[in-house]
Amino acid sequence: MSEQLTDNLAQAQKITDEEIFTAHVGGKLSVELTDPLEDRRDLSIVYTPGVAQVSRAIAENPELAKTHTWAERLVAVVSDGTAVLGLGDIGPSASLPVMEGKSALFKRFAGLNSIPIVLNTTDPDEIVETILRIAPSFGAVNLEDISAPRCFEIERRLIEALSIPVMHDDQHGTAVVVLAALTNALKVTGKRIDEIKVVISGAGAAGIAVAEILLASGVHDLIVIDSKGALHESRSDIEHMKREMAQKSNPRGIAGGTAEALEGADVFIGVSSSKVPEEQVASMAENAIVFALSNPDPEISPEIALKHAAVVATGRSDFPNQINNVLAFPGIFRGALDAGARRITTEMKIAAAAAIAGLVEEPAADLIVPNPFAPGVAEAVAVAVQAAAGQ
Amino acid sequence: MSEQLTDNLAQAQKITDEEIFTAHVGGKLSVELTDPLEDRRDLSIVYTPGVAQVSRAIAENPELAKTHTWAERLVAVVSDGTAVLGLGDIGPSASLPVMEGKSALFKRFAGLNSIPIVLNTTDPDEIVETILRIAPSFGAVNLEDISAPRCFEIERRLIEALSIPVMHDDQHGTAVVVLAALTNALKVTGKRIDEIKVVISGAGAAGIAVAEILLASGVHDLIVIDSKGALHESRSDIEHMKREMAQKSNPRGIAGGTAEALEGADVFIGVSSSKVPEEQVASMAENAIVFALSNPDPEISPEIALKHAAVVATGRSDFPNQINNVLAFPGIFRGALDAGARRITTEMKIAAAAAIAGLVEEPAADLIVPNPFAPGVAEAVAVAVQAAAGQ
Repeated sequence: MSEQLTDNLAQAQKITDEEIFTAHVGGKLSVELTDPLEDRRDLSIVYTPGVAQVSRAIAENPELAKTHTWAERLVAVVSDGTAVLGLGDIGPSASLPVMEGKSALFKRFAGLNSIPIVLNTTDPDEIVETILRIAPSFGAVNLEDISAPRCFEIERRLIEALSIPVMHDDQHGTAVVVLAALTNALKVTGKRIDEIKVVISGAGAAGIAVAEILLASGVHDLIVIDSKGALHESRSDIEHMKREMAQKSNPRGIAGGTAEALEGADVFIGVSSSKVPEEQVASMAENAIVFALSNPDPEISPEIALKHAAVVATGRSDFPNQINNVLAFPGIFRGALDAGARRITTEMKIAAAAAIAGLVEEPAADLIVPNPFAPGVAEAVAVAVQAAAGQ
Repeated sequence: MSEQLTDNLAQAQKITDEEIFTAHVGGKLSVELTDPLEDRRDLSIVYTPGVAQVSRAIAENPELAKTHTWAERLVAVVSDGTAVLGLGDIGPSASLPVMEGKSALFKRFAGLNSIPIVLNTTDPDEIVETILRIAPSFGAVNLEDISAPRCFEIERRLIEALSIPVMHDDQHGTAVVVLAALTNALKVTGKRIDEIKVVISGAGAAGIAVAEILLASGVHDLIVIDSKGALHESRSDIEHMKREMAQKSNPRGIAGGTAEALEGADVFIGVSSSKVPEEQVASMAENAIVFALSNPDPEISPEIALKHAAVVATGRSDFPNQINNVLAFPGIFRGALDAGARRITTEMKIAAAAAIAGLVEEPAADLIVPNPFAPGVAEAVAVAVQAAAGQ
């Protein structure tokens, strides 16, 4: 165990339940005024009668809403609480601490204002309809912890209907950071992206999005595995996104599960909670790359995976190489808003991944992603995303 | 013109359009973190994995959402932009500066977090449905600038469906401050509330609510006038709230408009934009009270009204006796939330009015309401409202 790992573990163990609960009393966010409001004069500017001038001006020229309200750069973090962390369908109220945390990260890492909106409905039609009705209140939508396959349809319909950036972070934030981490892991292992064999365990929100971005980035040999086995064109029990993915992946037509797929594979990416036995990891190619991202319990313990793989990453903060969405989403939204982009395109996501990978000057087996607290991560991502938006 | 009035006018005139627009660039609100987020350890508390403990605890015991999220004391300021200040139906985006201002006042005066939610629909069914779907995101609803008569139905249905405080401020905030101001104006003029003749010009949101709270406070002789004349049981062109009001007001059966109603009246309350000619004010009883609340142009100029009335108030900040909702709504919501009240009752509103009136130690003709910036206004209102909620 490396010294850094020991330190991280010790640090993590020092966090008590009491400390966590105390930090959540009253919530984690506050709404503040951007300017002091100390006398009748201030009141006449911020509220009546002065504010009427601004409202009248926006009514006459709607473009002014972009510069003279907070909404244009406000991110709504929207969830129905159906797929919260490892907890599953716990409902909107119980999901709120996560959404507050997400809003806190938007502010801390990208300087963006953000509000949690949790929904009393899990019906895709109602979710889409509700977000469209409240859409003039904000400038971007981060969908969060909405279960598959509903998340695919909800995101697609919102992107079509709205002219502001919409992104389901569980899909694309994860995909961007995985691509960034893989980019550097390939440098460490001396492999080429167009030659590797990739196995993704999990065909939910993250699994499908990771597969999509890897295919768009040059991976040819990629297998996605759901709870019944490898996605394969001959399977009759899959539809929608899984069927589409079966058609564009698994070129060698592998049937079976991780046992069959991992034999000779270069990369394993786990985004389900299914465990992977040590012997399957041992059956991978030389200099294998293992991303065991299930949280809090990785698909395989990183210590054991390291016996057989050259590079190992997890979703946990107490091991090296944490695949953490916070590296991506703040900068992606910041860049999209800076660009005035109507959509977050695949090109913008790939640019974000390249920017994140590029922040690690000398990639090593235990250093394939930057520290999220390193200065300038979100800024670098935002600049890259903004540039890609302009293309 | 009094010295104070001259000062106020001079001060008001010093606010330039440029100053107003500059103060609105980027909006007037920001979302901030309640605790610093500086390292991986903080991140593990605020977000994964620590936050999962709090979400799991709320899923098991929903009551914990009240103490461990920000939503329980978060006020949504909701508008469809149909009745914005004096501007009318300008739509959701143009109403945003007003709603941001309202949220700013909630923070400044009551210490409450608040977010503007503006809606892309004006249909009452859709407005109610939308608010119910996003309701787990907040702990109270301030309806704002929604036109009559839809505002009555929307408020009533939300109060029935939700177990959190809901109040349409254009109705009840105005009514509470009018009652407070009238209480002190009656002290100044030596009149009794159960003996006065009151004429309200305007049967919209504010007019109906002012009439309701005055009737509930002991006024017997009250006439409400809409654009076609006094509400009267024999009128065939009125329905809903206006018909109800016709049945419980106008005991002398006065027909006609302000000319007929104001003759011998003790109190005029203008909450429409209809002008009132000087001779009608001159026809009122001795020691008349005139509240000309239309903004920015009062129903009659306060200087002219003062020639015939003992006490004059307006909605403007540049005259004495400003009837300003900011005296009421921050403390009302604060008190209701402090009490954990499910409803804001008439008793709570009357208690708020009494608290506001009581803050003026020695009422005088030009001092019937406290300065909103006097320390402790919202606190005094909140204490009174909380006590009334417990009864």
